[in-house]
Amino acid sequence: MAFPEFDTIHLRHAGHTLYATFDAPPMNFVNGALLRDLIDLFEALEDSDVRVAVFDSAHPDFFLPRADASDVPAYTAAASTAGGVEDQWLGTFLRIVAESKIITIVKIAGRVGGAGSEFSLACDMRFASLERAVFSQPEVGLGLTPGSGAMQHLPRLMGRGRALEVILGSVDFDARLAQEYGWINRALPDSELDDFVNTLAERIATFPPKVLRTAKQRINQATLPDIAEVRTDALWFQKFARSPQFLARIGEASGRGFNTDPEVEKNLGVFVGDLTAS
Amino acid sequence: MAFPEFDTIHLRHAGHTLYATFDAPPMNFVNGALLRDLIDLFEALEDSDVRVAVFDSAHPDFFLPRADASDVPAYTAAASTAGGVEDQWLGTFLRIVAESKIITIVKIAGRVGGAGSEFSLACDMRFASLERAVFSQPEVGLGLTPGSGAMQHLPRLMGRGRALEVILGSVDFDARLAQEYGWINRALPDSELDDFVNTLAERIATFPPKVLRTAKQRINQATLPDIAEVRTDALWFQKFARSPQFLARIGEASGRGFNTDPEVEKNLGVFVGDLTAS
Amino acid sequence: MAFPEFDTIHLRHAGHTLYATFDAPPMNFVNGALLRDLIDLFEALEDSDVRVAVFDSAHPDFFLPRADASDVPAYTAAASTAGGVEDQWLGTFLRIVAESKIITIVKIAGRVGGAGSEFSLACDMRFASLERAVFSQPEVGLGLTPGSGAMQHLPRLMGRGRALEVILGSVDFDARLAQEYGWINRALPDSELDDFVNTLAERIATFPPKVLRTAKQRINQATLPDIAEVRTDALWFQKFARSPQFLARIGEASGRGFNTDPEVEKNLGVFVGDLTAS
Repeated sequence: MAFPEFDTIHLRHAGHTLYATFDAPPMNFVNGALLRDLIDLFEALEDSDVRVAVFDSAHPDFFLPRADASDVPAYTAAASTAGGVEDQWLGTFLRIVAESKIITIVKIAGRVGGAGSEFSLACDMRFASLERAVFSQPEVGLGLTPGSGAMQHLPRLMGRGRALEVILGSVDFDARLAQEYGWINRALPDSELDDFVNTLAERIATFPPKVLRTAKQRINQATLPDIAEVRTDALWFQKFARSPQFLARIGEASGRGFNTDPEVEKNLGVFVGDLTAS
Repeated sequence: MAFPEFDTIHLRHAGHTLYATFDAPPMNFVNGALLRDLIDLFEALEDSDVRVAVFDSAHPDFFLPRADASDVPAYTAAASTAGGVEDQWLGTFLRIVAESKIITIVKIAGRVGGAGSEFSLACDMRFASLERAVFSQPEVGLGLTPGSGAMQHLPRLMGRGRALEVILGSVDFDARLAQEYGWINRALPDSELDDFVNTLAERIATFPPKVLRTAKQRINQATLPDIAEVRTDALWFQKFARSPQFLARIGEASGRGFNTDPEVEKNLGVFVGDLTAS
Repeated sequence: MAFPEFDTIHLRHAGHTLYATFDAPPMNFVNGALLRDLIDLFEALEDSDVRVAVFDSAHPDFFLPRADASDVPAYTAAASTAGGVEDQWLGTFLRIVAESKIITIVKIAGRVGGAGSEFSLACDMRFASLERAVFSQPEVGLGLTPGSGAMQHLPRLMGRGRALEVILGSVDFDARLAQEYGWINRALPDSELDDFVNTLAERIATFPPKVLRTAKQRINQATLPDIAEVRTDALWFQKFARSPQFLARIGEASGRGFNTDPEVEKNLGVFVGDLTAS
């Protein structure tokens, strides 16, 4: 089982379990490089004997906070290569993740948001640090709609009213509330998170892979939307990304440290509410 | 932007946010007058620059406790004018509310139930006073099935088992349990409810309206039932409303203060369990 | 209203409420005898004036922990008689339970798992002892997929991520977490469970039966899967039950006390994680 070396994702094997750590300084944005690595990793996983993959972050403050707003063409181009067919976007790649035979678990500490949150939603289970995890879908506040899964996963996980609050409000959520709303499986004390997730992952990795795969397929059948909905969300995202309102808001945001200043990113919920361009 | 003056709903504007306060003494029942005002308000909203509407109540004990059992013909007639087409009922008007381009938030203190609960379920977000909110769908205990949305929204928000408990049990729920079950977004201490909701509403009202509208449409697409189900629920309600069992139970209830005595209404859950007519 | 005498289920009537207590020593496994009794009970209920049936267990440690692995042919044969047509399995009988005109409530103390959990999921409401209830779907860890409802009910009750955790992880859950995830309606202190459930059951039993039936049908319409999905789950279960991997794991398990030693059954979550055959 040979995995490529990745620049932005460090790998460690333990039997049929793979531990993957995102490390894309300065802030673990989903950019072209990280997305290319992630796509290649999932391709390699399909041909491996890995059964369970666990994702965490090398950065104490950022899991995957957002897509890199300065690198949209690169990550869009990267996404277009995920499936080898036309009309591939980040959302269709994340559908491949959701349908992967590999069981995927995210261990969230620090900020997860936007497209990073949508990666975590495509994964099979989400556990988070009670003290350090912060959740957001800030897209609407920035001037567009989430395009890669949040619009489908969040209503199914938390119901109409809470999904409208999360997505229209573009506010930050702590881990306790994320658990209450069903955004994550569970919030655990930071000191227990690693042991809990690793034990669960390595346990599942001892179970028969064909059974794991079938169980996941059947649960997907009951919970994933028609693929046409994924494409519709991607199209709305692309359309709004070219709109004058979005460009005005993102321009104002960039002038105030968005996408470059870690202090802005750590307080993105408040920051987005202070934008005035429209 | 000119809004009509309403007898039963007081309005206050703050930028793109509208605050609407139900005030229909003695107990804020959904009657013909209130429903006519509500229909006219939503028509006026569609032509306004309001983006977010927040609903609360002028009465400390009653948000919208129920439809007025003595005014069914009037509110049914009012509902029939909501869409300008045939076969309009309260449930089809509330579907218009759920699909409105206006983002709607209810701030529940006091009792919300029956058709009033169904209005709150048609709205986009529900926040409630931890100390003062009381929730119920008492219809089954009165001898009919909820006809205007509860049968569709509650199973989707809280799952089959809890929806069966709420609807078949016809019991009162406090705000803490309503949050646990997903009936509401969150229960907040009474002293924090206004600030929390108003801040959220006014924040959302600064976001681009086309983005808000599209996000809501996409979440509705994932969460609202086929309109045929709404009509089926309305038909069952109408059918049971003419049944001997319902007329016997409502007759017994009316003789014991139902629809007139505030102390009965404040303890409706217990009251409904004590009815004996069948 | 004459009910048969059952060996494994004791009955007590109270007005329109029936109390049914599972008593199938040594561990209340779902075996051929218990399933035959359960099928006959539901047939008798349809012709009775019972409106609400409450299920509990005579055993302090076991509600219905699993199907009896030593009696699969007998309970499969029993299930095949439930509907009088071809292709009947436990899952299709449990669909009959879910669609029964009788309102069904389970009062869970002790362990509920596997097919026993699937019976409880087919029922309308689930209340559990905070101190004594333990929940599991151990199938995947044993080498097959749940075949009689868990694959459909759990994703709808708790969402994709939590259902994947429960089913792929095959771990034991306590009542507090089962409530948090929506697996049950509520966990109650053991000392309050009987009073709470009996009061709710006898209250519902005073409501008009036609209204109860219609409300349940409408909620089922919004929450139950297409029957084809139930059959697909049953087919996967049957297929895996003949697989070498399952036979190897069940062989190893049986050699270590599975299905015979109560101490093994009480710690099934840990036990399943220690199996090594594959």
